[in-house]
Amino acid sequence: MSAPLLELSDLLGPKGLQATDDPQVAPWLQDWRGRYRGRPLAVASPEDHDQVQATLAWSRRHGIPVVPQGGNTGLVGGATPDTSGGQLLLSLRRLCRHLTIDADNQTVCVDAGCTLQQLQEAANAAGWLFPLSLGSESQCTVGGVLATNAGGVQVLHYGTARDLCLGLAAVLADGSSFSQLGGLRKDNTGYDLRHLLIGSEGTLGVITRATLKLFPRPARVITAWLQLESLEAAVHLFRLARQALSDVLTACEVMGPEALNVVLEQMPERLSALPDTRGWHLLIDISLPSWAGEGDGAIEWLHAQLEAGRLRRALVAQDLRQAQALWAIRAAIPPAQSRDGLNVKHDIALPVSALPRFHTACAHALESLVPGARPVVFGHLGDGNLHYNVRAPRGESPADFRARHEGTVNRCVHDLVTAHGGSISAEHGIGSLKADALAHYKAPAALAAMRSIKRALDPLGLLNPGKVLVPD
Amino acid sequence: MSAPLLELSDLLGPKGLQATDDPQVAPWLQDWRGRYRGRPLAVASPEDHDQVQATLAWSRRHGIPVVPQGGNTGLVGGATPDTSGGQLLLSLRRLCRHLTIDADNQTVCVDAGCTLQQLQEAANAAGWLFPLSLGSESQCTVGGVLATNAGGVQVLHYGTARDLCLGLAAVLADGSSFSQLGGLRKDNTGYDLRHLLIGSEGTLGVITRATLKLFPRPARVITAWLQLESLEAAVHLFRLARQALSDVLTACEVMGPEALNVVLEQMPERLSALPDTRGWHLLIDISLPSWAGEGDGAIEWLHAQLEAGRLRRALVAQDLRQAQALWAIRAAIPPAQSRDGLNVKHDIALPVSALPRFHTACAHALESLVPGARPVVFGHLGDGNLHYNVRAPRGESPADFRARHEGTVNRCVHDLVTAHGGSISAEHGIGSLKADALAHYKAPAALAAMRSIKRALDPLGLLNPGKVLVPD
Repeated sequence: MSAPLLELSDLLGPKGLQATDDPQVAPWLQDWRGRYRGRPLAVASPEDHDQVQATLAWSRRHGIPVVPQGGNTGLVGGATPDTSGGQLLLSLRRLCRHLTIDADNQTVCVDAGCTLQQLQEAANAAGWLFPLSLGSESQCTVGGVLATNAGGVQVLHYGTARDLCLGLAAVLADGSSFSQLGGLRKDNTGYDLRHLLIGSEGTLGVITRATLKLFPRPARVITAWLQLESLEAAVHLFRLARQALSDVLTACEVMGPEALNVVLEQMPERLSALPDTRGWHLLIDISLPSWAGEGDGAIEWLHAQLEAGRLRRALVAQDLRQAQALWAIRAAIPPAQSRDGLNVKHDIALPVSALPRFHTACAHALESLVPGARPVVFGHLGDGNLHYNVRAPRGESPADFRARHEGTVNRCVHDLVTAHGGSISAEHGIGSLKADALAHYKAPAALAAMRSIKRALDPLGLLNPGKVLVPD
Repeated sequence: MSAPLLELSDLLGPKGLQATDDPQVAPWLQDWRGRYRGRPLAVASPEDHDQVQATLAWSRRHGIPVVPQGGNTGLVGGATPDTSGGQLLLSLRRLCRHLTIDADNQTVCVDAGCTLQQLQEAANAAGWLFPLSLGSESQCTVGGVLATNAGGVQVLHYGTARDLCLGLAAVLADGSSFSQLGGLRKDNTGYDLRHLLIGSEGTLGVITRATLKLFPRPARVITAWLQLESLEAAVHLFRLARQALSDVLTACEVMGPEALNVVLEQMPERLSALPDTRGWHLLIDISLPSWAGEGDGAIEWLHAQLEAGRLRRALVAQDLRQAQALWAIRAAIPPAQSRDGLNVKHDIALPVSALPRFHTACAHALESLVPGARPVVFGHLGDGNLHYNVRAPRGESPADFRARHEGTVNRCVHDLVTAHGGSISAEHGIGSLKADALAHYKAPAALAAMRSIKRALDPLGLLNPGKVLVPD
């Protein structure tokens, strides 16, 4: 072991440092989708804030870059070291001893290494809701969801990870640290470092603990599946739903025809609850507080939309089992796509009002580019966030399609997203995968300001180098 | 006129530059409370984003500092130039030509110089609610409320200015600018410059336009006045109210005994609606969506609290006039204090759970420091935000009291706020008034990071120098 590693081993104790050939750490050296594979110097697993601080001070003393990692569930290669053998992989998994609920403040203070599911369960056990909900919730960590500003299916009402966070403890690149964990709803004492660190993907600092908002648990959730003529009709109905239902509309997912086609082809059993898979579909949750009884008024509103011809069909789940069956259709889209083979993925956001004209323009442009290519459109309508994944033309090999067309399809979609005022990364972040695209699409002044901030807070470029910002 | 001013006059046109002896600008040279009085080089009033950009590029060419100002309604001297005669006062009032509502996106895009009231009225006319509401709303500007992250009485449910903002156009100190006005709910493309500028009080950039969230208007608002034994009982009731009423609880204001005493002494006619002013009081709004009918379930919950002995008394307004009369009591506290004479003001936030023990400790410490001093406690309970204003002992001159004790009382309150995990500026910001206090109370690592960011984005120190951050 080199002198710097011996020193780090002394700082972190026997469980705190592992060699890269340790079988326990093998899965951490690549991203879970297998697109990025790294070879770090070693793997550090500090057990608390002070050990994280010691690790970053060590990094600075020796000029050794650090790549922070939570649950390693990211989709953009943001937590995988490079292959130089010179970067330290900093796993935050052991930071999971502290979780305290402050009921009168309606907050929870939790270590960065706790999983999202542990947090959800602790909140639930105390009679509260922690609303962030993701496919990877059993593995992803609190620190990771904050560092990437994760989203999910309840953002419409409860917001992204950013919106749920009232305070952080963090270590900066120079080894200094601050802790503002009081869970204050208002604090206008200077620049908001919390929001600067959230979404910075470990390039500006390492989050060690956070204070997050808790919410009252709904007394009853009504789940409904709505079938519509078009994306335009879906956008219009969403507006009416928000105006009429207001805050009890807590989820509004959209699925286009091709998204249900993939499920029909690969996992048809999931669709048994649906009499008709044609057209566009919304899956909504109406979350009622205890004082609202059965929510008859909300159900009446749905019926009125049906009578007014704004819906083809509405299925209202009559019990939890039916609600779960409807959500299982939505949840089937990603695995059905995996079975279907490779496609060209996008995680985009647009103004909700621009979704129909964006989709029309994009489908048209893709047809010109690769005749027969099929956009699989689904996502979070209320957030303007589509997972706009382009599937090979019928009969063509998915792998060939992706190998030949990924670059041009990405460019086509991202150009049109930008032209419609949208974002090329709605909720997955930039990491390695989109760092070049960010350099291309981000406004030059914003990119320059980001670079200035990075240089100011990490002048030696030691925190997650090459992620988010490519070298000048 | 000096050569640089002639150049600026050419850039901004005849209406764009005024001398400091122009009667129109006289009120802008001091803060409205008269605590800060400036003497700028001249007053620039650009008419659009491009002219703001030209002004900041000019500032950089000539090394002339710029002090941005919106409606000049701030409470901390953040928008008043110094007395050197060398700073340009940059008024954003003329930027008020653009206001567009995107109904399907549920957003409004508005120029920074529009007043908050203009924005509220435009939203209302289009069938939406823009919920930010402040005492100064007829004069304060959109840019100003964002630059200071203003709060107000509906933060509990709708959030502060920060939480309402989905995008900005802004000019940075180097004259570069960016515009992200699409109104995206999700955008994970790098560091969040929006949140860095919001609350930075014009020290990092100048906001020229913003895209803000709109909300459904409530169909009905139930206003109730609740009388309780103690602040502790109020905190406990607030928790129960949030759990039971959830999102329809949109305001929860608290008033302590001394706050009502001041009103009783100075504006007793306002209290005619209240049979008993003793103890602690909550003023709540329950905002019901259309589907919820009369909100009987919410009223039943209030009755149940009364029967359970958690309240001394509950007055539920039976019509809009009664609701306004109850809110007029809350609104009377600041003017009643003005009539009463000078006091020592604080704008603090604490974890809601810490409010009772903070108040006990602080009242005790103040009594030791200045026997008979009377804390006038009122504010936004749901946000943990108290306006904790200390009044002279009975019979003593308010002016003498403030002159003799302001520094020690500030220190006493702010020390205890800090010891309880709170903030010394909840919603008013730092400006000039609290810049020294910030340097004293902010965590050193956070302060150092703020200074690094300031140097990175404004290396010449030309934007609102001396505000927020005192020189090293």
